[in-house]
Amino acid sequence: MGQIEQRLAALGLVLPPPMQTPSGVVLPFPWVRIHGNRVFVSGHGPLAADGSLAKPLGKVGAELTQAQGYEAARLTALAILSSLKQALGELDRIEAWLRVFGMVNAAPGFNRFPSVINGFSELVLEVFGPVVGAHARSAVGMAGLPFDIPVEIEAEVAIR
Amino acid sequence: MGQIEQRLAALGLVLPPPMQTPSGVVLPFPWVRIHGNRVFVSGHGPLAADGSLAKPLGKVGAELTQAQGYEAARLTALAILSSLKQALGELDRIEAWLRVFGMVNAAPGFNRFPSVINGFSELVLEVFGPVVGAHARSAVGMAGLPFDIPVEIEAEVAIR
Amino acid sequence: MGQIEQRLAALGLVLPPPMQTPSGVVLPFPWVRIHGNRVFVSGHGPLAADGSLAKPLGKVGAELTQAQGYEAARLTALAILSSLKQALGELDRIEAWLRVFGMVNAAPGFNRFPSVINGFSELVLEVFGPVVGAHARSAVGMAGLPFDIPVEIEAEVAIR
Repeated sequence: MGQIEQRLAALGLVLPPPMQTPSGVVLPFPWVRIHGNRVFVSGHGPLAADGSLAKPLGKVGAELTQAQGYEAARLTALAILSSLKQALGELDRIEAWLRVFGMVNAAPGFNRFPSVINGFSELVLEVFGPVVGAHARSAVGMAGLPFDIPVEIEAEVAIR
Repeated sequence: MGQIEQRLAALGLVLPPPMQTPSGVVLPFPWVRIHGNRVFVSGHGPLAADGSLAKPLGKVGAELTQAQGYEAARLTALAILSSLKQALGELDRIEAWLRVFGMVNAAPGFNRFPSVINGFSELVLEVFGPVVGAHARSAVGMAGLPFDIPVEIEAEVAIR
Repeated sequence: MGQIEQRLAALGLVLPPPMQTPSGVVLPFPWVRIHGNRVFVSGHGPLAADGSLAKPLGKVGAELTQAQGYEAARLTALAILSSLKQALGELDRIEAWLRVFGMVNAAPGFNRFPSVINGFSELVLEVFGPVVGAHARSAVGMAGLPFDIPVEIEAEVAIR
């Protein structure tokens, strides 16, 4: 078991299985696209332990509180780590997190997007540490997200 | 004629001319920015055969049906291929599609953004095949897009 | 003083100090992430001369006119240059602007996002010139932005 997976285990974090695509939907793209040492991560949402979309669905500031949005961002981090493990074999290959684009399904009047996406950033920093885990970030409010997921995050990382 | 252009011709696909910028608007940036083997594609919308903005304009889920949104995403793919051909000379130089960021002008309550942006992804896969054409992707709902275009897509590709 | 800073001075442009984070907010990420010759710029908003968020806050097309949005985008460019100077030491290290993602806090019915984000692009072109300063760009409307800032911009540049 690699060092990052040991760290996940020590923190009690379990990666979900790959996303169960909702029926009737075709997603003709990979969750992770590797090119040389560059790794592009498709937009992911939060997953439950069985790989289905995590509940609750909806907009942060309406169907979800800010705290529930934070938890959704944390689950999104685990979903992305799951996809990265599947694509890379070994999470220790990640040399640096580079860019994180955090999208929040925004109810009118809600604007605390950074506090929501912190659920993602803080988990990445806990697991990878401040050198590898640091990332440029935006955290912004969207008019809508697929399947009414509350959070969607895309990213780029560099590998060895 | 290169292999990709032969493929476009075989599929009966015709690239539009460069976008006719709506009057009174200044767009002080290139449609494609090349740096080494990296190629950044500015946000494009769907174009008609004469390079004007394709109709209908508006939000998907209101002025446009999902099927019309899909068609707009398909036209956006052709607009991007046109810009890439102009910038690169030859579409065969594209070694890999990397990242696709698909933005849908979203009517309240519409959330089938992936099914809209599939109009882009499926065309790219038809033309470039599954190895070169694969791409990381997000497909999300925006509060608004320039000129009320229904779809806007930005991307990055790698060239030889 | 480097050439870019001389140019800023000749244009009468002054970079703001680093952003004063609003109280009660944790932003666990750097404003700039450097990896090799790639530089990722986190989403920035407009800053006042003291590093606080520039006023007015709100949506362009409602609380702000288009002209005020343009000015906010211009201030966002200065905020980004300030972060880049702090991270790079010397702005002359910038070899090329690559990608600019311009997000406008959009009031319903407003769609002139390119004319707003031109405040950013035109300043970058004035300061860096057309070769280094050229960039791929999207300019789009968001449902919300942190702290109700009117404009947020993220970017990537290449350094020597």
